[in-house]
Amino acid sequence: MKIPKAISDLINQFERLPGIGPKTAQRLTFYLLHVPQPVLDEFAAALINLKKNTVQCSECQNVAEADPCPICSDSSRRRDLIMVVEHPLDVLVIERAAAFDGVYHVLHGILSPLDNIGPDDLYIKELLARLQHGTIREIILGLNPTMEAEATSLYIKNQISNIKNMASTRSSINELTITRLGQGMPTGGDLQYADDSTLRQALEGRKEY
Amino acid sequence: MKIPKAISDLINQFERLPGIGPKTAQRLTFYLLHVPQPVLDEFAAALINLKKNTVQCSECQNVAEADPCPICSDSSRRRDLIMVVEHPLDVLVIERAAAFDGVYHVLHGILSPLDNIGPDDLYIKELLARLQHGTIREIILGLNPTMEAEATSLYIKNQISNIKNMASTRSSINELTITRLGQGMPTGGDLQYADDSTLRQALEGRKEY
Repeated sequence: MKIPKAISDLINQFERLPGIGPKTAQRLTFYLLHVPQPVLDEFAAALINLKKNTVQCSECQNVAEADPCPICSDSSRRRDLIMVVEHPLDVLVIERAAAFDGVYHVLHGILSPLDNIGPDDLYIKELLARLQHGTIREIILGLNPTMEAEATSLYIKNQISNIKNMASTRSSINELTITRLGQGMPTGGDLQYADDSTLRQALEGRKEY
Repeated sequence: MKIPKAISDLINQFERLPGIGPKTAQRLTFYLLHVPQPVLDEFAAALINLKKNTVQCSECQNVAEADPCPICSDSSRRRDLIMVVEHPLDVLVIERAAAFDGVYHVLHGILSPLDNIGPDDLYIKELLARLQHGTIREIILGLNPTMEAEATSLYIKNQISNIKNMASTRSSINELTITRLGQGMPTGGDLQYADDSTLRQALEGRKEY
């Protein structure tokens, strides 16, 4: 049976999205057949304007309405503490937890040789440039606890070591510490369902009670 | 933290879709931040054109590019056999199985008093009008095997009985039979996981081997 082109077009568009399979794409498309045209027009406008009405902050590389972004231009935040994250969504999540008062640096991905993503495809150069200013005291590597992110963290650490080695002994970059997020049991987690690596990290990271 | 309006707008649009929660809506939106603008424009065009480039077939009420739709205007299909389904997507699925050579009637929903959906909100009147022509021999009720659809099937059956009662004894509508899809174990199903109702239906519908 021939599906009307207008319908198969939209199914194809939905299928391109990550995590949306052919069945979900069909279901969403046929659902939208029953909504009024203004709702479709609004959805379309939101898609068209997504990138047009946003810019990338030239300091932290986060996506924002203005450059510099609200966080980078907020004078109440510590500017000597940078948290490095993979994606803009990570910034959103950390801000929601209201647990961090420094600034961010968004890499927009992690190293992935299989996908042909090398250091030059991420905003690592820009991070190193920020360190050269000499006012940064601590870098928190806030990447996801995955194998690929591990390699990215290690690469950044080595790059910073290189800069330190080349800097004069009086340079303030020698004071820079690199930390990473604590690993262990998540709140609400269950020991019975925790994997070996998480249990090992939780034991290593035990604290006096 | 303030999310840029362009981003929260698109998150809201995705969240309105059935089965898409806030986390998925965020994930899809941030994914789209990394695709080129022409891809976004194409997606938007597919949304805008979805309803503009489709019509509802005045005979079977299915969504199509032309009226009558390709199935209703296909002379090789049996026109005395109508399968009643809930949604246009159901037509697609049955056509893919290539197991049916009659025509369809799409109700565009089922009776649902809780959602304020009564007989006048579905295309039941249009179905009854097709029966009056007198050339229909069989109606297959192809609604989903759910409680709500059961009520809809029963309503349609009663309406047809009413028409038969009012028709003259010579009218061909008296020959009309109403059938429903067989119920039982699905292909590849597992007796251990089948629910009581399915098992009961499978026993009732047993066939000589």
